Amino acid sequence: MDINKANVTAAQRMIEARATLIGMGKAIEVIPDMHENLLLHAGPPIDWDRASGPLRGAITGALIFEGRAKSEAEAEKLVKGGQIELAPCHHHSTVGPMAGVTSPSMSVYIVENSEHGNRAFSNMNEGYGKVLRYGAYDDDVQQRLRWMEEVMAPVLAKAIEASGGIDIKALLAEALHMGDEGHNRNKAGSILYLKALAPYIARVSDSLETAEEILRRIGDNALAVLNPVMAACKAMADAAHDIPESTLVTTMARNGTDFGIRVSGLGKRWFTAPAQIPRGLYFSGFGDEHANADIGDSTITETAGIGGFAMAAAPAIVTFISGTPKDAVNATLEMYEITAAEHVAFTIPQFDFRGTPTGIDLRKVVETGLTPRVNTGIAHKEPGIGQIGAGLVRPPMEIFEEALRAFAQKYNI
Amino acid sequence: MDINKANVTAAQRMIEARATLIGMGKAIEVIPDMHENLLLHAGPPIDWDRASGPLRGAITGALIFEGRAKSEAEAEKLVKGGQIELAPCHHHSTVGPMAGVTSPSMSVYIVENSEHGNRAFSNMNEGYGKVLRYGAYDDDVQQRLRWMEEVMAPVLAKAIEASGGIDIKALLAEALHMGDEGHNRNKAGSILYLKALAPYIARVSDSLETAEEILRRIGDNALAVLNPVMAACKAMADAAHDIPESTLVTTMARNGTDFGIRVSGLGKRWFTAPAQIPRGLYFSGFGDEHANADIGDSTITETAGIGGFAMAAAPAIVTFISGTPKDAVNATLEMYEITAAEHVAFTIPQFDFRGTPTGIDLRKVVETGLTPRVNTGIAHKEPGIGQIGAGLVRPPMEIFEEALRAFAQKYNI
Repeated sequence: MDINKANVTAAQRMIEARATLIGMGKAIEVIPDMHENLLLHAGPPIDWDRASGPLRGAITGALIFEGRAKSEAEAEKLVKGGQIELAPCHHHSTVGPMAGVTSPSMSVYIVENSEHGNRAFSNMNEGYGKVLRYGAYDDDVQQRLRWMEEVMAPVLAKAIEASGGIDIKALLAEALHMGDEGHNRNKAGSILYLKALAPYIARVSDSLETAEEILRRIGDNALAVLNPVMAACKAMADAAHDIPESTLVTTMARNGTDFGIRVSGLGKRWFTAPAQIPRGLYFSGFGDEHANADIGDSTITETAGIGGFAMAAAPAIVTFISGTPKDAVNATLEMYEITAAEHVAFTIPQFDFRGTPTGIDLRKVVETGLTPRVNTGIAHKEPGIGQIGAGLVRPPMEIFEEALRAFAQKYNI
Repeated sequence: MDINKANVTAAQRMIEARATLIGMGKAIEVIPDMHENLLLHAGPPIDWDRASGPLRGAITGALIFEGRAKSEAEAEKLVKGGQIELAPCHHHSTVGPMAGVTSPSMSVYIVENSEHGNRAFSNMNEGYGKVLRYGAYDDDVQQRLRWMEEVMAPVLAKAIEASGGIDIKALLAEALHMGDEGHNRNKAGSILYLKALAPYIARVSDSLETAEEILRRIGDNALAVLNPVMAACKAMADAAHDIPESTLVTTMARNGTDFGIRVSGLGKRWFTAPAQIPRGLYFSGFGDEHANADIGDSTITETAGIGGFAMAAAPAIVTFISGTPKDAVNATLEMYEITAAEHVAFTIPQFDFRGTPTGIDLRKVVETGLTPRVNTGIAHKEPGIGQIGAGLVRPPMEIFEEALRAFAQKYNI
């Protein structure tokens, strides 16, 4: 067996994957095996009892949005009674930031990897503050979700179609030359996204008022492109999955309770351990004691070679997540130690356009003792509150050790 | 006398100046002392006989646009006969990129420095390629200018007003954290500008079609914000002018034949010498032998502490103007040697948010032998052709030496 060769194949597929945003559609109509009693969530599998506050809040909010529940108690009853099933987004070619809850009637972005023929999906971004993905679910949250679904989604869907598709991989490559790392900082990417869509938003809107409001909402949301970016990274990571004998990590995701990874050569199996509390900067009035454990599928960015792995491209991010620009450089340098390849499309100007460290090699993580660096938002641990900061986190080392043992066992090493 | 104190005052005024884009208006109506027989141009004063190809081409194009001439021969006759006067933009609180020709009926941006009560002006940006500012003046150029004047300008004027004004200084500060240096690279700034205006463009357009076209033209032009940025820098530099005993350079500008500077403590006097050919990267099919000497008022950016002085913030620019990211870092480091201050608003993330080198001190230029670094576009030397590359240039040392001698004489040192 030749693990290195398998990893080269897997990394190459990840790097060569295309990622074009080709449209939007209702989750139930476009996500594989989605059904009306299914809610998708971030991270590895979990049930209600072990779900954290923000995940319970987001499940509640999604069931209110679907007209299936009116309160957390009702939501709990539906989920525990089995009328509503929970499944990881990752089991359905989908990724969602933070709680990542995606319900049947929500519109989702469709990203296509034409190189390998797979697709990935992600919901729309709600902006900052008190939002569903951080477990908030009150009337303001519901109103915004309805506006997004009824007003914004139809326009975006038509605008994306009219544009002929948006090359998210190219957009990301450009954004990395504009101070983004693509995970916590998507300032440049989001306005590149606005730039790409703006004329088509005007073309397909039914009125100048609608166009104005959608242009404003997208322009005001520096995370507008995060969800298409995550779907793009998912499409890339999935292209690298299921390569026999490969030790490449193709999933890293958290549900607010557990951090889970999956490995290219190890099929569908998750390796999980308790998620940690991120270290970072808190919004005024909040601190560690309010923080939920690490949550969200947005670690798909690091999995695909951006985010925390591309920190050196985004020195200004330290004002948001803590640290110094030098730390940002070191973060990226460190990640070269645990990755199998350097990206061809995603490059870092200040490293003389060196490619970002891409394709986490399980073996290198265990050998070096260096776990992947992840940038992340911080959610309040109680449902209904929302984001309280942003920072850095690392997955627990034990899941990599466990995965490596499983690899050795499977392949009789 | 206390030169250092005077320079601190001047630099502080430059740094504290505000720069808000408050509207647009016809040059003849808003630019001080503009009149119907006057054309403004970039750089120090010049007459037709000494004017370079691109400047002659732009003068011709502007007179065609104004309906005053039909050919270069007619334009030459009007200018040489005195029916049309030429004057530097800089004499009228105005700046224009490349040839910088601004004619009475062109709409210009109005930027206000509310801190010191002065205003500055700049024309609209035409985009890349064969354009008036590079001396092209054929039907395509005329058609674009007419569209800009008849369709775009009225919408922009109303959109800027509806927005309540756009803080160009804040926009620039943000763009420097997004890989721009504000002169040759305005990629981030231009889409920040689009983001700020987009909803208002939708609001004030008379139709969705008009909104679509304007959103597309601005979004497609990575230099869209250059002209408001130049006017902002002009407003800052003018605030530092006329401080007695100050050796700060408050103007650097080229007309395609001469490079000229003016000094805070030396009033209106220009110090000029032949402009040089930029070194850089040429578009396919062009080389040094086609290049015009350095041209344009866009050196106002370096004068105000950005552009070539902020290269370290924009490592990706080297793909456009030549060199390596390390050269970009060194360019900024070198400019600290010849400047009086570090900017408070314009900072460089990878230097731990150190302020950009700001306020060129004549004395330091002469003492160190280091002339200011300038990023620039390269024009074809024949009129009517346009841009053929981009690169780096330095002003001739002799103008700094001459200015220092004049300073010594004026102040009896």
